[in-house]
Amino acid sequence: MTIETFFRSESRAMRFPEVLISEVGPRDGLQSVATTMPTDAKLRWIEAMHRSGIREIEVASFVPARLLPQMADAADVVRRATQLQGLTVMALVPNRKGAEAALAAGVHKLTVPVSASVAHSLANVRKTREQMVEELRAIADLRRERAPGVPLEAGISTAFGCTLQGEVPEDEVIRLAVQCVEAGADEAGLSDTVGYANPAQVRRLFRRLRAELGERAGAAHMHNTRGLGLANCLAAYEEGVRTFDASQGGLGGCPYAPGASGNVVTEDLVFMFEAMGVATGVDLDRLMSARAALMAGLPGEPVYGMTPEAGLPKGFVQGAAHV
Amino acid sequence: MTIETFFRSESRAMRFPEVLISEVGPRDGLQSVATTMPTDAKLRWIEAMHRSGIREIEVASFVPARLLPQMADAADVVRRATQLQGLTVMALVPNRKGAEAALAAGVHKLTVPVSASVAHSLANVRKTREQMVEELRAIADLRRERAPGVPLEAGISTAFGCTLQGEVPEDEVIRLAVQCVEAGADEAGLSDTVGYANPAQVRRLFRRLRAELGERAGAAHMHNTRGLGLANCLAAYEEGVRTFDASQGGLGGCPYAPGASGNVVTEDLVFMFEAMGVATGVDLDRLMSARAALMAGLPGEPVYGMTPEAGLPKGFVQGAAHV
Repeated sequence: MTIETFFRSESRAMRFPEVLISEVGPRDGLQSVATTMPTDAKLRWIEAMHRSGIREIEVASFVPARLLPQMADAADVVRRATQLQGLTVMALVPNRKGAEAALAAGVHKLTVPVSASVAHSLANVRKTREQMVEELRAIADLRRERAPGVPLEAGISTAFGCTLQGEVPEDEVIRLAVQCVEAGADEAGLSDTVGYANPAQVRRLFRRLRAELGERAGAAHMHNTRGLGLANCLAAYEEGVRTFDASQGGLGGCPYAPGASGNVVTEDLVFMFEAMGVATGVDLDRLMSARAALMAGLPGEPVYGMTPEAGLPKGFVQGAAHV
Repeated sequence: MTIETFFRSESRAMRFPEVLISEVGPRDGLQSVATTMPTDAKLRWIEAMHRSGIREIEVASFVPARLLPQMADAADVVRRATQLQGLTVMALVPNRKGAEAALAAGVHKLTVPVSASVAHSLANVRKTREQMVEELRAIADLRRERAPGVPLEAGISTAFGCTLQGEVPEDEVIRLAVQCVEAGADEAGLSDTVGYANPAQVRRLFRRLRAELGERAGAAHMHNTRGLGLANCLAAYEEGVRTFDASQGGLGGCPYAPGASGNVVTEDLVFMFEAMGVATGVDLDRLMSARAALMAGLPGEPVYGMTPEAGLPKGFVQGAAHV
């Protein structure tokens, strides 16, 4: 986001953001619930989050509708979301075909999942890791031809362990991230797809990633499966990570990673950073209000979050944190 | 705990612990649920946690039974818990009278809560902060006469904010901790009684505490009210704190601090440290098993914990963490 975009935004949190909260709920969250949220409801939710100051949202996954019916309206959601001023509209694409559709719909940013776990790669995309790097290369070529201004990120999934395979060697994770950038990704981030990460490992891996890739080291995508989500984000922040994936209401998981559950809750993550004096650009009260749009679109589905349940501390003034 | 005690313990986690997990469930947890756990059930739970390698447990609060009927059996619980080999049996005492009863029962360690919030101090113990420091001095005098070998710790409650008062000035927190040590406490720790703390604040306050008190800087007592409990423990660990209060099943709160809820879950905290390669001396499988004794003693009461729900990661071997 540019300075101009920020000051045009309606956010009441007026300091320039130090971290970027990349909301993945409409993709990671909605793909993992049985109910399909209607397109209009998705847009109302995306709009509500945008009003709170969220400036990057992964709104859809371009996969065959027979595999993920919840994502059948991906092109429509992207087209409509791009009408929101100052919002970076992101989509997940597992292959060149998906990337073509996403670019045709006018997406602003592409993310490609590349599994570090051999077992998860086969289960998730029915490709080996090497085949996925080749797929990423094809996507990068396409992007260069059709939309050179659209950033392309690789998300190294199961980077901290895998429910199918168990341990994932750290050398393999880092090597894969480097291969992804060599194949044409602008950056590579690390995803704790199944909630196995711990803060020491997060520090170690992001430190290595940054040593290898410098500014091409990408986002931290953490799950809260074992309660360590925020501690892992803190560890990543302290290693210099400045983009954090999170999901409103803690929705999320991976349909092809058994036992994966709950992304880091956006509300709790924003509260942690703002309480620390780290500006997110997101207005906490408006973010809390956006939960109503999520719940209206998924009636009966459980929605999580400790800060929304407990409320903000007495006398808490956003942006007034002692730093 | 001495090296001898550790090697006599049944724990399967054989490395010498780097952090001390101080279990507060039988006091902080049980005082905040409506049901009174029967004495025998309390002992079965305490024994089960002791079997897992927990070496310090706050087993009771010596307060009038008409105020906290859940703690009416405090003396009996202390007496019986002191039979467990290698366990430091701790009790909370709000005044000299309570300390007399706790020492008579044979307690190994005393903790005195001293509120940094003026409003919480009056609500919790109906005394000003200055009056509580004098009470602590009386307890320290008593301890010197009757049981000079029994350590005395002050727990500075509402050290990170207060639901009644809002912000609690950091200078006042540190000054109070210093006054407590001057009045005779062996150490002073900081408690986030109502779950307002954030990692930056935790770092700042423990750094100042350590600068003022050196080795007399005590435990971190964190609540998970807004989901930041483990992140706050991580921040405290990184500032050199080595004793952490936690409560099995995340029970806890303060009956006189509205909105206080859930201590840091012992199971999640032990998992975080062990996964990081920081030895706790606690066997995770046995700790999980101890939940059955808690649940049997409080039928129908909700018990929390993300790691117990999700299970340990595939292939996770305690003590084998890459460090």
